[in-house]
Amino acid sequence: MIKVGIVGGTGYTGVELLRLLAQHPQARVEVITSRSEDGVKVADLYPNLRGHYDGLAFSVPDVNRLGACDVVFFATPHGVAHALAGELLATGTRIIDLSADFRLRDAEEWSRWYGQPHGAPQLLEQAVYGLPEVNREAIRSAQLIAVPGCYPTATQLGLIPLLEAGLADPAQLIADCKSGVSGAGRGASVGSLLCEASESMKAYAVAGHRHLPEIRQGLNLAAGQPVGLTFVPHLTPMIRGIHATLYANVKDRSVDLQALFEQRYAAEPFVDVMPAGSHPETRSVKGANTCRIAVHRPQGGDLVVVLSVIDNLVKGASGQAVQNMNIAMGLEETLGLSHPALMP
Amino acid sequence: MIKVGIVGGTGYTGVELLRLLAQHPQARVEVITSRSEDGVKVADLYPNLRGHYDGLAFSVPDVNRLGACDVVFFATPHGVAHALAGELLATGTRIIDLSADFRLRDAEEWSRWYGQPHGAPQLLEQAVYGLPEVNREAIRSAQLIAVPGCYPTATQLGLIPLLEAGLADPAQLIADCKSGVSGAGRGASVGSLLCEASESMKAYAVAGHRHLPEIRQGLNLAAGQPVGLTFVPHLTPMIRGIHATLYANVKDRSVDLQALFEQRYAAEPFVDVMPAGSHPETRSVKGANTCRIAVHRPQGGDLVVVLSVIDNLVKGASGQAVQNMNIAMGLEETLGLSHPALMP
Amino acid sequence: MIKVGIVGGTGYTGVELLRLLAQHPQARVEVITSRSEDGVKVADLYPNLRGHYDGLAFSVPDVNRLGACDVVFFATPHGVAHALAGELLATGTRIIDLSADFRLRDAEEWSRWYGQPHGAPQLLEQAVYGLPEVNREAIRSAQLIAVPGCYPTATQLGLIPLLEAGLADPAQLIADCKSGVSGAGRGASVGSLLCEASESMKAYAVAGHRHLPEIRQGLNLAAGQPVGLTFVPHLTPMIRGIHATLYANVKDRSVDLQALFEQRYAAEPFVDVMPAGSHPETRSVKGANTCRIAVHRPQGGDLVVVLSVIDNLVKGASGQAVQNMNIAMGLEETLGLSHPALMP
Amino acid sequence: MIKVGIVGGTGYTGVELLRLLAQHPQARVEVITSRSEDGVKVADLYPNLRGHYDGLAFSVPDVNRLGACDVVFFATPHGVAHALAGELLATGTRIIDLSADFRLRDAEEWSRWYGQPHGAPQLLEQAVYGLPEVNREAIRSAQLIAVPGCYPTATQLGLIPLLEAGLADPAQLIADCKSGVSGAGRGASVGSLLCEASESMKAYAVAGHRHLPEIRQGLNLAAGQPVGLTFVPHLTPMIRGIHATLYANVKDRSVDLQALFEQRYAAEPFVDVMPAGSHPETRSVKGANTCRIAVHRPQGGDLVVVLSVIDNLVKGASGQAVQNMNIAMGLEETLGLSHPALMP
Repeated sequence: MIKVGIVGGTGYTGVELLRLLAQHPQARVEVITSRSEDGVKVADLYPNLRGHYDGLAFSVPDVNRLGACDVVFFATPHGVAHALAGELLATGTRIIDLSADFRLRDAEEWSRWYGQPHGAPQLLEQAVYGLPEVNREAIRSAQLIAVPGCYPTATQLGLIPLLEAGLADPAQLIADCKSGVSGAGRGASVGSLLCEASESMKAYAVAGHRHLPEIRQGLNLAAGQPVGLTFVPHLTPMIRGIHATLYANVKDRSVDLQALFEQRYAAEPFVDVMPAGSHPETRSVKGANTCRIAVHRPQGGDLVVVLSVIDNLVKGASGQAVQNMNIAMGLEETLGLSHPALMP
Repeated sequence: MIKVGIVGGTGYTGVELLRLLAQHPQARVEVITSRSEDGVKVADLYPNLRGHYDGLAFSVPDVNRLGACDVVFFATPHGVAHALAGELLATGTRIIDLSADFRLRDAEEWSRWYGQPHGAPQLLEQAVYGLPEVNREAIRSAQLIAVPGCYPTATQLGLIPLLEAGLADPAQLIADCKSGVSGAGRGASVGSLLCEASESMKAYAVAGHRHLPEIRQGLNLAAGQPVGLTFVPHLTPMIRGIHATLYANVKDRSVDLQALFEQRYAAEPFVDVMPAGSHPETRSVKGANTCRIAVHRPQGGDLVVVLSVIDNLVKGASGQAVQNMNIAMGLEETLGLSHPALMP
Repeated sequence: MIKVGIVGGTGYTGVELLRLLAQHPQARVEVITSRSEDGVKVADLYPNLRGHYDGLAFSVPDVNRLGACDVVFFATPHGVAHALAGELLATGTRIIDLSADFRLRDAEEWSRWYGQPHGAPQLLEQAVYGLPEVNREAIRSAQLIAVPGCYPTATQLGLIPLLEAGLADPAQLIADCKSGVSGAGRGASVGSLLCEASESMKAYAVAGHRHLPEIRQGLNLAAGQPVGLTFVPHLTPMIRGIHATLYANVKDRSVDLQALFEQRYAAEPFVDVMPAGSHPETRSVKGANTCRIAVHRPQGGDLVVVLSVIDNLVKGASGQAVQNMNIAMGLEETLGLSHPALMP
Repeated sequence: MIKVGIVGGTGYTGVELLRLLAQHPQARVEVITSRSEDGVKVADLYPNLRGHYDGLAFSVPDVNRLGACDVVFFATPHGVAHALAGELLATGTRIIDLSADFRLRDAEEWSRWYGQPHGAPQLLEQAVYGLPEVNREAIRSAQLIAVPGCYPTATQLGLIPLLEAGLADPAQLIADCKSGVSGAGRGASVGSLLCEASESMKAYAVAGHRHLPEIRQGLNLAAGQPVGLTFVPHLTPMIRGIHATLYANVKDRSVDLQALFEQRYAAEPFVDVMPAGSHPETRSVKGANTCRIAVHRPQGGDLVVVLSVIDNLVKGASGQAVQNMNIAMGLEETLGLSHPALMP
């Protein structure tokens, strides 16, 4: 039984980790920290967990208690993992960080986008970007795993088959992405109120969103050269789900794109390439760790449209984190993650 | 491994059965029938099931194939189980009927409310009402189980502690119930369109809803006498969930209602009596087989208010059906049903 | 042209006043105050108002500027009108207060429910409760009008015909009320987030809600004696709308309740008694100043069920405030309020 | 007072016409037709209209009664206006057709996309495409007006300033559009059920949507040459609203795009170019006849992103139809259309 610690478990990725780990046959949450909720039982904050974690209460972060765990998840705002990771790694535990702290290889770029100095640049070399479909081998032996963001997961999985195959023109890629409101977190903000965010649709951060450099970094690697990417996120009136609509120019019309995608993901347990002509719905992955993808070439033109959907809290955060844990701990990769989506 | 058949699996209770049974370690769906979808793979109709039932396709109902199953669920409109049950029971299989066909003990009353003759009155004697919290022993040996309706489950679980204890005045009970739209089924009807049912609230069937006689029958049994019940259902702009707000006069102010409810359900795995002062949310049971209950006596008056929430598709239908299967087949009652609700 | 001032216009009742007054042919907003948004144009905070109030910006409250208006609306949290009303009334302007400050006749009771001393008990005598269907004559000459709360409006309009006629047993009245989330205001609170309040239903404040004494006060007056009232509010996953489901015992079965309601409201421009057997939907009044009512006597029993729906921001707040203004200023009562609801 | 007829008034564009015309000071609905609802009062089908059209009932289409009107709106499925328009025009009335029947100049192309022969090719020459921002002069004297579709309105208004100025590369334009569910109409279909369409996002008709040729036709005209357009519509979990996210390559970085858009629409009463850096929300136009637009050039690159929002039932259908009526009848263009959007 793997001993698990969670730092910062009061937000949506925290409660989602608890939901998923409650069903995991080989993991047990030993510690969950929150400064603001110290002493509160997790089931009092999240009544869906009543009966599942009755002994577990939030506690103030303590390196000794966390260090005694086999794996420590960080479900924290950016900056927190920077501060604690070094000390924790010294205890020998593994860190799986759901925040953005170790996703960018370049500390300077991180600093530019997050508006503060990078707090642990010396750890970047050992940090592994936790996208199993790209980095599985490195994850197996990683001590510090940076779980990809939600938009980056949906976008990279949709575009890398084209880029790895050298088919897409890297100069102009577009990711028009639509996210449910849970992507904004559980903080009390006017913009996330039901009365503000429901019955409406809007783009935001068109000038530049923090996930842009992360996506670009991954696409650069897949393309083997710098790509030009335009990323437009939209707030969508639903709780969960990301729908990435991806545009790439593919001049070569002789290639069988459907076969390309199917082959690229043939061995992947959590990527589902749908039949040609499909339109994946975000609800088909609600609560599940699956990314569903469909490839289109409308009117047989140069512009290829890839549709890629995930649940931002599962494959886009906590589910992918558990998938990383399974890989890193030598477990079956799908353990605790094989339930179907909730539909309707 | 229990062999399962499902008659009429294209509606919401059908797909929910498939979702729950996909996670059940001791059951396997062998047959699923639908005349209209004959030959279609279940995963083509319900993409959330892709990867879970890849070999399974809908087929035309066939008594031999169904009879070879250990358990056959009916997830059909009323009248269908009447027609098939007799023949099927003769094969020795168990029937767990999610429709209303065998819920009422009185064939005449059934006929009045459903506007057609009862199709199998000779089977009523052996039919067991599948509310485990009341009928667990009878369910163990039942061949024909009538799974309670959604409103009846939430309402009965909320009121029977008061009635069994003889505390509530049986002359005037009120059930003001709010249901998500999935209770109306997957049929294409204008009233269930997103543009008609979202951003709105309404009562319906105030003059008399088909669940009224079913609830009354259960409450009569609990009270040991005929009760007077007013039942007002409301359509609520959400997919899943029932919130029953129940009103009963309890003159005796010396009784500890919180303790009464806690004791009544102390051994029940799927009824959660919340702490005094709680307000259960339907989302706290979304996708889970749990009924959460809170008891209030506002301003210390005579009128007791019980709040009872379930997921209408789980504890109000398919989850309760699986719970019945577990009991009837001698399995652990919680098998395949122990996952937490999806929240947020 | 009536000169209008608005104190505290940044919340939902404030922007709704602006929306309604933009269509009002005889009123013009001269001043709108907000300490936090001083200098900000109203159209910058509320883009739906772009093109309608391009010269209008929030300013710090100033008694001279407000006093120069013919009418001053307060769309503020409780306590603010207490502090300003006396000084403003001295300037000769009329006050129409949308907050709870002057709704209760009894300063002690106000203090008990709002947890602070009443700040202006000396003004209570001149305050008029602004429910036109009850108090129209007093409103005509009022200087200080307390606009009823949203739950109180829907509940009183639904129950007073029965109470005024002496038909309902006053000892036990029940108001099971469902409100959209805008009733909680525009403040950033976790409970009002889309991810917390959508796809869910819950009761709240069952032990006692601040609208209880206000409703009871109005019903006492209608009944001519103290009533026993149980009031259970529920949070419903929609933006606007209140659905009050009201229960009263009416022993006399000879009375024609439909006719009673139709006669009571025959001359009322904003109360619509629907045909017998109707189920009013909240969306049928979305954005409109109408209360729609239907009366039922299920199964011909003693318990009468009244269904009453309003838009909490219109007939439950800002629309009723404008209706009061029209009456008090001698205008046609329906001016600026005659547009149909937005449906779908 | 203009006498108005409406053919096919039972759908969402029909009821929206009634809502808007109820507030129009110079128009009066004399006839409204529906074969299926013959004899039913409009207020019985649409309770939001109770008190507004109490004498008006649906009737079977009759050319004499319609021909006696000054203007006849068609709010019908495609093909209906083809069949009736010729005969009606002969009576001298004006036709404002909200369907797709006369939008495409090329009868062959119409036939290809709609899967049936064009029913009135001889009328195409006199048909005027009713986008006032492009065709105002022609509308003034038109007898037959084809009201643009919802996606075409939002997309054309967003792209034509760039194309008219010769700034955008016409070879590759992208319209990634998100629509509320009311765009699918009021027909009972499984895909539009609340339980299917809420809490989810999906693209549809990526291979080719019927609005594609209409948008292309308008953009060709603006560009003065054939354009290459990829159009991907998405179903969004809300009732009303279209959000068009438009991508165009603009190599010239010296041009002030903000000024370009502001100048293009300076005299337009229903196009609001928002300040630089804005992100228009669909709710800011809910119920209003406004198109709000913002222009972005992310990271200062070649790709320009235009955000364009409308209410699909107003500026995308019935509001634009009334705007056309005002122009064609010589009234003030904004008459009956000047109310603000409903927000929240």
